[in-house]
Amino acid sequence: MSKFLVFGHQNPDTDAIASSYGWAYLERTAWGRDAEAVALGTPNEETAFVLDYFGVEAPRVVESAKAEGVSQVILTDHNEFQQSISDIRDVEVVAVIDHHRVANFETANPLYMRLEPVGSASSIVYRASKEAGVELPKEVAGLLLSGLISDTLLLKSPTTAASDPQVAKELAEIAGVSLEEYGLEMLKAGTNLASKSAEELIDIDAKTFELNGNKVRVAQVNTVDINEVLARQADIEAAMTASNAANGYSDFVLMITDILNSNSEILALGNNMDKVESAFNFKLENNHAFLEGAVSRKKQVVPQLTDSFNA
Amino acid sequence: MSKFLVFGHQNPDTDAIASSYGWAYLERTAWGRDAEAVALGTPNEETAFVLDYFGVEAPRVVESAKAEGVSQVILTDHNEFQQSISDIRDVEVVAVIDHHRVANFETANPLYMRLEPVGSASSIVYRASKEAGVELPKEVAGLLLSGLISDTLLLKSPTTAASDPQVAKELAEIAGVSLEEYGLEMLKAGTNLASKSAEELIDIDAKTFELNGNKVRVAQVNTVDINEVLARQADIEAAMTASNAANGYSDFVLMITDILNSNSEILALGNNMDKVESAFNFKLENNHAFLEGAVSRKKQVVPQLTDSFNA
Repeated sequence: MSKFLVFGHQNPDTDAIASSYGWAYLERTAWGRDAEAVALGTPNEETAFVLDYFGVEAPRVVESAKAEGVSQVILTDHNEFQQSISDIRDVEVVAVIDHHRVANFETANPLYMRLEPVGSASSIVYRASKEAGVELPKEVAGLLLSGLISDTLLLKSPTTAASDPQVAKELAEIAGVSLEEYGLEMLKAGTNLASKSAEELIDIDAKTFELNGNKVRVAQVNTVDINEVLARQADIEAAMTASNAANGYSDFVLMITDILNSNSEILALGNNMDKVESAFNFKLENNHAFLEGAVSRKKQVVPQLTDSFNA
Repeated sequence: MSKFLVFGHQNPDTDAIASSYGWAYLERTAWGRDAEAVALGTPNEETAFVLDYFGVEAPRVVESAKAEGVSQVILTDHNEFQQSISDIRDVEVVAVIDHHRVANFETANPLYMRLEPVGSASSIVYRASKEAGVELPKEVAGLLLSGLISDTLLLKSPTTAASDPQVAKELAEIAGVSLEEYGLEMLKAGTNLASKSAEELIDIDAKTFELNGNKVRVAQVNTVDINEVLARQADIEAAMTASNAANGYSDFVLMITDILNSNSEILALGNNMDKVESAFNFKLENNHAFLEGAVSRKKQVVPQLTDSFNA
C-alpha cells in the first residue's frame, strides 16, 4: 500500500497539528495504513507549548507532496486548496477531516469526507477513534484536547458544539490534566506577541479566502490585552500593507482577540473597507473597530465578509 | 426548529430517492428533526417498481426550496450544484450524504458532510442508522437495499465497496427479500426501454459535468441487449444533438450498459470527440465504441473524461 501524508492547513495552529497527528495515529492503529503526519509550517508558540508539554516532536515540515514521492494525501482542519499543500491539485485527496465551510475544493474521484460543524477537527478525530475502538495514548489525547481548547478558546467560542464539553472532559481525563488549568496555561502561551516582529505577528494564524474574486487575508492573534497590540498599530499596518502588495491580497483583516473577555478588535486595510464595514455593521476609525463578543473567525467573521463581498 | 428538505439529484435514480427517504426517516426518528424527503423529478421505471414493491408513495416533486418556504436543505447522493435544486445557491446546505467526487460545491458555513467511497449513498444511510441505534422498518430497508443494488448493478460494479455485500445482506434480511432474486427482478424493471421515446431514453439517468469549461452530459441506460438499443441509433443521435443544442452541452456521452454481462457501449456526439476517444483509448466508429467491463459512470467514465478534458 502506498503511503499517505496527513496534514493540516498552512500556518498550522494547534488544531491543525493535533488533528493531523491524531488522524495519522488512527490510520496506522485502527486501519493498518502507512500514514505520516506532517505539517505545512512550523508550530506557533501555543502549539510548541503543547508539543513540549506532552513530549511530542513537531511533525516535519513539507513543501510538496510530489517531492515526498507521495501521490495520496489526507487533509485535516481545512479543505480549501489555497490553504493546503502547494501541489494539492496534482495529488489525490483520499480523505478530509474538517469542521470548516467547504469551498475551492474538488476531486476527480469519490473520497472519504467527514465534516461536522463542531468546535475543532480534533473533536472529530476523537469521536472517530472511539467509534473505531482505539484507546488513545496520553499524548495523543493531550494533543487533541489542545486542538479543541485552542479553536474554541476553552469552550467559550460560539463554534463550540453541544458535544464538545463532553469530548473535552473525556480527553482531559485520558491526558491526565485539569481542563481549566491546563487550558488557560496553554492559551496564555500563545499570547506572547512581544517577541514577534509585526511581519511575524500578522502571519501567526492567517488564512486567505477568495471572496467574489478578491483574495482576502484574515488573520487572528490572541492576547490578554488588546491595547498592548494596538500600541504597535503603525508597524502592524505597514506589515499588512506590504503583505497585501506582495501577495496580491485585496484586503487584510486582522482580528485581535482578547481571550479573557472574549471580544475582538478588528484592524483592516485594503480596497474594500466599505464591504468590511457593512459586514460588521460598524465604522472603522483609524482603521480599526471593536467587535463585541467576536472570537471566531469561522463563525463571526468569514461568513459576514462572504455575504458582504457577494452583496 | 425550521423544516429541512432532503433530496437526491435531478433525474433521480433509485439511490437518490432511497437515500433521501432513508435519511429523512433518520432525521425524524433519531434526532427529532422536521425533515421531509422530496425529489427533483419523478421516479424512473426501476424506482417505480421499488416503491410499488415496498408500498411507499413516491416523494413529491419540488422545483425550488424557496417556493416551499424552506431555507435549509440536506443533499443525498450528490453535491454538485448543477445536479441539485434550482435555487441551491440561495439556501443553506446543512448536510450532505454522498458517495461521489466533490466539485462545484461550496458553502458559507460549516456543515455536516458524510462522504464515503462506497457503492451507494443508501449504504451510508444504513450505516448511520445502525450507529444511531435506529431499527429500520421493512420498507425503509427495502428502499436502501434497492439503492445499493441499483448503483452497483447487484454488487458487480467496481464501485462496490468491501463493506457493501454485508450491508446488502443485512438490508435484505430486514426487508425480507432474497438479494439475488429481488435484485435481478428490480434491475430488469429498469431495462424496459422500448416504451420510451429517444428523448426520454437519454434523460432517464443523465448528469451534467463541468469539464475544463465544457458542459458535458453523461447519461446511462441499462439493458439486457445492447443491440436492441443500437437499433434505434439514428433517433437517439437526433435526440442527443437536439439536447446539446438546447442546453448548451458541448458533448453528449451515452453509456448503454448490459446489466447481465457488465459491459457498456459508448455512444457519443459533440465538439470534443478526440477527448472522448483519448479518455477511453478507443476509436469511435459510427459514433460508438465498446467499453469492456465498464458499468460505472462514476468510476469508469467520469474520471477518465475529467483527465482527458484537462490534459
